[in-house]
Amino acid sequence: MKGQVIASLKAVESIIQTGALPVNVKWFIEGEEEIGSAHLGEFIKKNAKLLEADFCVNPDAGMINADSPTITYGLRGLAYFEVRVFGPDRDLHSGLFGGTVHNPAQALAELIAGMHDKKGRITLPGFYDKVRKAGKAERADIARLPTTPKHFLKQTGVPALWGEPDYSPEERVSIRPTLEVNGLLSGFTGEGSKTVLPAWAMAKISCRLVPDQDPDKIYKSLIQYMKKNAPKTIKWDVKNLHSAGTAITERDSVGVRAMAKGLEQVWGKRPLFKREGGSIGVVVELQKYAGVDSVLTGFGLPEDNAHSPNEKLHLPTWKKGIDAFINMFFSVE
Amino acid sequence: MKGQVIASLKAVESIIQTGALPVNVKWFIEGEEEIGSAHLGEFIKKNAKLLEADFCVNPDAGMINADSPTITYGLRGLAYFEVRVFGPDRDLHSGLFGGTVHNPAQALAELIAGMHDKKGRITLPGFYDKVRKAGKAERADIARLPTTPKHFLKQTGVPALWGEPDYSPEERVSIRPTLEVNGLLSGFTGEGSKTVLPAWAMAKISCRLVPDQDPDKIYKSLIQYMKKNAPKTIKWDVKNLHSAGTAITERDSVGVRAMAKGLEQVWGKRPLFKREGGSIGVVVELQKYAGVDSVLTGFGLPEDNAHSPNEKLHLPTWKKGIDAFINMFFSVE
Repeated sequence: MKGQVIASLKAVESIIQTGALPVNVKWFIEGEEEIGSAHLGEFIKKNAKLLEADFCVNPDAGMINADSPTITYGLRGLAYFEVRVFGPDRDLHSGLFGGTVHNPAQALAELIAGMHDKKGRITLPGFYDKVRKAGKAERADIARLPTTPKHFLKQTGVPALWGEPDYSPEERVSIRPTLEVNGLLSGFTGEGSKTVLPAWAMAKISCRLVPDQDPDKIYKSLIQYMKKNAPKTIKWDVKNLHSAGTAITERDSVGVRAMAKGLEQVWGKRPLFKREGGSIGVVVELQKYAGVDSVLTGFGLPEDNAHSPNEKLHLPTWKKGIDAFINMFFSVE
Repeated sequence: MKGQVIASLKAVESIIQTGALPVNVKWFIEGEEEIGSAHLGEFIKKNAKLLEADFCVNPDAGMINADSPTITYGLRGLAYFEVRVFGPDRDLHSGLFGGTVHNPAQALAELIAGMHDKKGRITLPGFYDKVRKAGKAERADIARLPTTPKHFLKQTGVPALWGEPDYSPEERVSIRPTLEVNGLLSGFTGEGSKTVLPAWAMAKISCRLVPDQDPDKIYKSLIQYMKKNAPKTIKWDVKNLHSAGTAITERDSVGVRAMAKGLEQVWGKRPLFKREGGSIGVVVELQKYAGVDSVLTGFGLPEDNAHSPNEKLHLPTWKKGIDAFINMFFSVE
């Protein structure tokens, strides 16, 4: 049935007979997605009434492969910080002063090392307080995804995976929050050796957040950690550089159910359900400012070279996607 | 007695009467000191017989102040390394992979944090095995130095001093070995935020060594530490970049005693005795290859701007220094 329109007979008949869709559709076209959606939140806030809807269908997700229709119902948020540790008032000669002052690069390393316990859990005070627990059904659906430990090993090239032992790698990147060091800088970093005892050390540190964590509270949690753990031998500073909220749509909500049925009618199988590790501004802000939940799906394949040279669309999959959307409209209960 | 020659009458009379010094003097002029003494060791090895001596007087040290003649009888050595930790085979998106792989910047921080215990002692296996213990008399002399904790606080500008609680700050920079982080580099270090999960992280790490520690053994000790503590989730590499041996001259040796007497005759007080935190190639190599111990002293003052614009000499102190050397020659037992 390559390239064949396979929307259900009932759906096609209904359109022919009534000349209309069985639901009202509002189009919301977001033109700022690739530049960080700077004015989007303000627009949604001002036009919340206009944007009222039972749910939003957002096609900005993809498929795992051409045979696996996929619904994305959750996105992680972000809290991004710059941590600086200050020691002596200038770089010192390590021979003349080494041993008497707390090396700020070492102090920073000690603070970073303490941010996870031995099981890979984050130790910032209250960090997990608001994490919404995934239920058995959700975790069972995550287990259906083909992103096995072997997949992650191959994708990353690490000698062994790492992370919270009570969660699968796919769960660790979707339903669990993380804390990552994105950058480190201190002292002499060129070729060869220089016996400097650096005046300061810097780390870029960011957390991927899950519902219902709040980036502002995570900032406060980091400040609390620093106050509790930073020794008196150094000074420190934390800059709150960037944040993004989390988003989640209930898996049994009207939108997810309609989209799942639409996909199933075309592919002949139940779709996969996943949460994404990254963030999409419009999903977060529609939920936050207009109370509209999004269902994400899409018909791009991993091999489509999205945003890259030779970007392509697989036409048979694209046409199946059109059919799935038609069926979705007729599956809204 | 500003500018007045005050060598002892006995010494001056002896020179007038005999036209000679009471000891044989060999001059050894080292012209490579400021460029790392690259060919010096080889020269000393080849000419050990020519350089035979009871002791070497090396004027490449300084005074703490114009009223405090000072003898330096020991120098710390150096072992300098570059440690790299490797995680994924390329930089990753922290949203897609964060939580499943051991962030190499975090792993490096954990390894660095483990290199000291809570008391500031270094945890590399066998690190302290060869450290020569300072006796009561030596520590009493170190306690006479004016480099109080207050002095170190003022010199460094840190909020509080740090280090092994059983040793004074002056002891920590002289009779105790150290391990310092000289540099850190990983991931994104520019302005703003980038959610990279870095592929690798690097630290420059160096140890100041004391007699009788050996830089090669310290390298092995670091390798042992890494083998024991580096997790299987990362790969690592240690480069041995640079090393320098330690040097020490017994405080009751013929040279130190003669120099002390020479200084005391001019300043009218017992000199201060100290070990330096840094390294001087010729001292180490004369001891290692020719078996000649050095006594270091000097008449430069902290305010002389050594190696800087407006470098100067305090002439009255310089002339007292000449007298002290004359008296030293006549004090050799």
